[in-house]
Amino acid sequence: MSDENRALLAANEAFYRAFAGREADAMASLWARTVPVACIHPGWDVLTDHDAVVASWRRLLANPASPAVRCRDARAYLYGTVGFVVCHEVLPEGVLVATNVFVREDGRWRVVHHQAGPVAVAAPEPAPPASRKLH
Amino acid sequence: MSDENRALLAANEAFYRAFAGREADAMASLWARTVPVACIHPGWDVLTDHDAVVASWRRLLANPASPAVRCRDARAYLYGTVGFVVCHEVLPEGVLVATNVFVREDGRWRVVHHQAGPVAVAAPEPAPPASRKLH
Repeated sequence: MSDENRALLAANEAFYRAFAGREADAMASLWARTVPVACIHPGWDVLTDHDAVVASWRRLLANPASPAVRCRDARAYLYGTVGFVVCHEVLPEGVLVATNVFVREDGRWRVVHHQAGPVAVAAPEPAPPASRKLH
Repeated sequence: MSDENRALLAANEAFYRAFAGREADAMASLWARTVPVACIHPGWDVLTDHDAVVASWRRLLANPASPAVRCRDARAYLYGTVGFVVCHEVLPEGVLVATNVFVREDGRWRVVHHQAGPVAVAAPEPAPPASRKLH
């Protein structure tokens, strides 16, 4: 895996760290500022500009009833200074599948788009290594 | 709107023309060949390589029960040689919201990713111009 691939996956992890930790400022800082962005929350219609997107995340993360989320199975697709990650979002009520699109901006990978939606049957989570089971 | 924006929207239209017309060869030709691709059909888990993606479209379009689809509200987001389009997919059973990611390949916009999922409440379709109502 290339360094850029790793950097893209690290940006995706930062996204889910802010999401799971309800860190609204961190989440806001992850979205691109100098290029257009969009966001499709599960079941919502598309939000088509930066202010609407960041405001939606601030509302979502301010809600103590917002679900605990965990990202797994992240896979990076890289095309120069743009890339996307597909991953599963594990929530108490089920598993979603998500696309997160990133653009290099000021030397960092920043989010320009997020779409998450339900998946009827997600691939099972890999079992822990056998050695762990023996101890 | 820039020429590149128009070209990106035209590629998105070609995607839905192939989809609605069940033109499997046209659909296959729209997907990028030289870079990695992925696809998330509504409710499905993610397909992570070119062969799996193209095979899924061939099965889907070969099915005479596959739904008639119409794209509306397409909006292009352009980042140099990569871009995405968000749009609504109007189906007999409801409206989906979709993300289609494109990359310039051999001088053409080709699809590298598609995700579609349900939207609870899509913005209403614009009413036809008043002049049409009067005739």
